[in-house]
Amino acid sequence: MPRTKQIETLSEQRCHEGVQGFYRHMSNACARPMRFSVFVPPQAARGHTLPVLTYLAGLTCTEETFVIKAGAQRLAAKLGLILVAPDTSPRDTGLPGEDEDWDFGTGAGFYLDATASPWDQHYKMYSYVTRDLPNAIAANFPADMNRQGIFVHSMGGHGALTSHLKNPDTYRSVSAFAPIGAPMRALWGEKAFTKYLGPDRDAWRRYDASELLRIRPSEAKLLIDQGSADQFLDEQLKPEILARACETAGQPFELRMQPGYDHSYYFIQSFIEDHLHHHATILKAPGTADNL
Amino acid sequence: MPRTKQIETLSEQRCHEGVQGFYRHMSNACARPMRFSVFVPPQAARGHTLPVLTYLAGLTCTEETFVIKAGAQRLAAKLGLILVAPDTSPRDTGLPGEDEDWDFGTGAGFYLDATASPWDQHYKMYSYVTRDLPNAIAANFPADMNRQGIFVHSMGGHGALTSHLKNPDTYRSVSAFAPIGAPMRALWGEKAFTKYLGPDRDAWRRYDASELLRIRPSEAKLLIDQGSADQFLDEQLKPEILARACETAGQPFELRMQPGYDHSYYFIQSFIEDHLHHHATILKAPGTADNL
Repeated sequence: MPRTKQIETLSEQRCHEGVQGFYRHMSNACARPMRFSVFVPPQAARGHTLPVLTYLAGLTCTEETFVIKAGAQRLAAKLGLILVAPDTSPRDTGLPGEDEDWDFGTGAGFYLDATASPWDQHYKMYSYVTRDLPNAIAANFPADMNRQGIFVHSMGGHGALTSHLKNPDTYRSVSAFAPIGAPMRALWGEKAFTKYLGPDRDAWRRYDASELLRIRPSEAKLLIDQGSADQFLDEQLKPEILARACETAGQPFELRMQPGYDHSYYFIQSFIEDHLHHHATILKAPGTADNL
Repeated sequence: MPRTKQIETLSEQRCHEGVQGFYRHMSNACARPMRFSVFVPPQAARGHTLPVLTYLAGLTCTEETFVIKAGAQRLAAKLGLILVAPDTSPRDTGLPGEDEDWDFGTGAGFYLDATASPWDQHYKMYSYVTRDLPNAIAANFPADMNRQGIFVHSMGGHGALTSHLKNPDTYRSVSAFAPIGAPMRALWGEKAFTKYLGPDRDAWRRYDASELLRIRPSEAKLLIDQGSADQFLDEQLKPEILARACETAGQPFELRMQPGYDHSYYFIQSFIEDHLHHHATILKAPGTADNL
């Protein structure tokens, strides 16, 4: 099934001397066409292969949200980082109920591989993000796949943390904005996990960062920013559970509570530079494959 | 009619240590409620009054477009600039035909005062931008109205240039992204001016920057960025006519053709910093009222 690597260009536009593009390809995992965006910084024109930083967005977002609202291209163009943002779920699968709720189905793939029917037919976002998407990036962009990082927001934060913890050699740097850090203990997570994974809570643990940390902490420092005025802080995000799990497991982390900030991209754009520097420092450190 | 100064807060969110807000008020000129956005940088919390930079957006945009897509808040927060962005037209006026075309009526006010019926009932965007909106800003924000600049995009570019040229003492700095520089000689402009101002082309001159320059050039340097791959370059924007008018009139200007850039906000965000520096240099120069 080689089609995953073939991509269709939807648009490419000049941005900060690099190229902001939108693409579509067939995902083997999801058995659906998937859209994603890529920002290629100007260093690519000079023949470099570049580190890849993948962003996983939150509920209701698309591959465009980060591109438009986060203000990341400016610094990525200076640091020489390729930015990749997938869509947040398969779309138009025809599965009954996929469009009924804003926090489940379309726009809410939760970056896991569904095992419960009928969602297991298409909702395989974990395999999509960790396999199909990197394959397409490696085949079509000047990417150094030995230098990948992953970062995110909210539901995406959950996806990034679990993707990193399961694949620390692939994603060498990780950070999150307002992540769902303990989805098994949050309403969003309980609802999604029940429908995607079935009622057996033991099967949920492999997609809960706070649970995963117990069995396999990583060596990379988790950078986490969390707004103190976030409307989802107490009910859904619960960073204190994640922080406690990090402490218990010996996982290096930095949780920064940001006074007055909410859950929006105004929050994200305010601290995006710190995150890009965090990743660039790790991905371009001496000893990595190709320092610029 | 004091209501123009009273504003209703729709939302306020923390952003780069300042506040990004959206507001609504009754416009006397338009006889309709109008929405606008304001970014107040963190210097305001230290008791300063700050320069005001007003952005006029292009066709189909709203008061939100610049806020989300231009990436201006980061540097405005450092430079201590208040950013103001009005909507691009009155909305829901009930006038027949206002929603028929994307380049006329709703989202296409062209920053002029309509004189032809029925548009003269509500489409008074020139008076709104130059009078009602500044009155609301002066009354509700820590603004130094003696230090105002104006800048923009496309249709807004046209609006900024004419607003500045008619009021050089009010708007002391001016710049534009891909402006409609000679609307009387472009299809967008001809259509809008015919419907808003009537068929007498002599009456159009007061809203055409290239014509206005002949009779009243200003002392402030116009900074103009134009993408060479802009899809509207030859048919609608015609920067060469504007440049020639500047040369003939002795108006200082800098027209920068940017290779490969199109008409989008990817272009704008790539050069927004140069524009903010351009305005800050003028508005905060020695001799202005209140240097920070």
